[in-house]
Amino acid sequence: VGKPVFSSDRYYDEPPVGVAMGLAWTELGGQTLYIECTSVPELKSEAGTLRCTGQMGDVMKESSTIAYTYAKRFLRDADPQNEFLQRTSIHMHIPEGATPKDGPSAGITMTCAILSLAMNKPLRNNVSMTGELTLTGKVLPIGGVKEKTIAAKRSMITEIVFPKANQKDWDELPSYIKDGVTPHFVDTFQDVYKVAFP
Amino acid sequence: VGKPVFSSDRYYDEPPVGVAMGLAWTELGGQTLYIECTSVPELKSEAGTLRCTGQMGDVMKESSTIAYTYAKRFLRDADPQNEFLQRTSIHMHIPEGATPKDGPSAGITMTCAILSLAMNKPLRNNVSMTGELTLTGKVLPIGGVKEKTIAAKRSMITEIVFPKANQKDWDELPSYIKDGVTPHFVDTFQDVYKVAFP
Amino acid sequence: VGKPVFSSDRYYDEPPVGVAMGLAWTELGGQTLYIECTSVPELKSEAGTLRCTGQMGDVMKESSTIAYTYAKRFLRDADPQNEFLQRTSIHMHIPEGATPKDGPSAGITMTCAILSLAMNKPLRNNVSMTGELTLTGKVLPIGGVKEKTIAAKRSMITEIVFPKANQKDWDELPSYIKDGVTPHFVDTFQDVYKVAFP
Repeated sequence: VGKPVFSSDRYYDEPPVGVAMGLAWTELGGQTLYIECTSVPELKSEAGTLRCTGQMGDVMKESSTIAYTYAKRFLRDADPQNEFLQRTSIHMHIPEGATPKDGPSAGITMTCAILSLAMNKPLRNNVSMTGELTLTGKVLPIGGVKEKTIAAKRSMITEIVFPKANQKDWDELPSYIKDGVTPHFVDTFQDVYKVAFP
Repeated sequence: VGKPVFSSDRYYDEPPVGVAMGLAWTELGGQTLYIECTSVPELKSEAGTLRCTGQMGDVMKESSTIAYTYAKRFLRDADPQNEFLQRTSIHMHIPEGATPKDGPSAGITMTCAILSLAMNKPLRNNVSMTGELTLTGKVLPIGGVKEKTIAAKRSMITEIVFPKANQKDWDELPSYIKDGVTPHFVDTFQDVYKVAFP
Repeated sequence: VGKPVFSSDRYYDEPPVGVAMGLAWTELGGQTLYIECTSVPELKSEAGTLRCTGQMGDVMKESSTIAYTYAKRFLRDADPQNEFLQRTSIHMHIPEGATPKDGPSAGITMTCAILSLAMNKPLRNNVSMTGELTLTGKVLPIGGVKEKTIAAKRSMITEIVFPKANQKDWDELPSYIKDGVTPHFVDTFQDVYKVAFP
């Protein structure tokens, strides 16, 4: 209390493989946050597993599980040859490590980070996103559209992925907040994928 | 506090395979909720397992276990060739991810969602259900018949599956609540199955 | 508080295989309860395991473990050819799912339910039972003889198995409570078995 819960610094000029930028909503306003995924070198891996760090709360941990299951299914359909997620264990981290984080709205961001790693393909630059993911790929609305938009602009983000059900919140924002940002309203993760990857 | 605990929006015009619509009873009235089941792609799976997300409480987690055991036995009898549930791991989620949920009354809904996935067959559209399931397939009564009926109608549901022991509660509802909904009173899961699947 | 903790309704006219009726003692009086056991279909099962649902407390969970061990030993002696309990995983549930239950007095009932399933033989109808089981098969006394007798009669039970050490409690009951019920006082599980199975 008294200092920003999330850092607003950009760590990366261009997102590396396995990293996606999300938007969080705190009592002190919006914040950008990075979801980082890497593979864990192992001698033999019979089955891929996911471990998480970054002081995630219970709801956010469940979000990571949903993202992981969904990413496996998405990749199986999009590229059946790619067995990365079945063979490799993944570590997901959300800096800063000392900051407790929670909530379901990083769902689509986590899924993009996992897929970026599995496909060895970085996300488009200057895109940030927020949205809860269901197990079937529906994107559910989130809170804090205004605060998240301000935070995104502070981090030089020019495109934001929002759930379709949040379009009414966006429409109500004054122009000076919306200026310079292109919103993308998505209904399913398929829509997210088209915006997030080049 | 002050806003509905469950969203009353319908996510799906038609239920996808693995998804069933249930009815919940909260301090704020009734709500529809979706049970979503998907398979988890794995390289080798010696034995099917079930994982759950959606902030389920202890009683609801036990309900999912009962539904899983019952579905395995139901499928073994109905279609002995179908080894899906023995071979495949399942992920069950109940959006919205941040909403704590509990109670045993989603038992029959969970079982339908699992069977829909295992049989690769969607449930009938516009059907919602509520009922506790025992391990032998008996359907036990639930609370909130009135509130659940109102919530179902708000989500354009036209048929509701209720436990037989709740018929007296239905009979006491005023006509303006019952209008437009066909109730089905069930004693065992066999009865549920006949209504829920086409 | 204010409504019966256990339902006094009978779910079954005749007990299915794997189901036994016990008697519980609550602050609000006695209640009948069902112990339900089913096998869990599995592709390969190297070793039988027992899982439990029904909001059992720690003592009751230990009772289920004692019942499981005892049933395995009992069956090995009674029918050495029968390897069901070594080969098959069992799920034990005690409806209603939302009601917390505890105490050791369901020991003999759990054992009968497991044996019924393993021998594929239903218990005698209209028999209910209560008694703590030790690992060697001794049946220890329980509380609530009066309340349990009343509950059993309410559920149309005509024969009750009580621990031998509770005979003095029975003898002190007024005739109008005892009328219509035949008690069986047992010292070991061998005695229970003779009454419970046809």
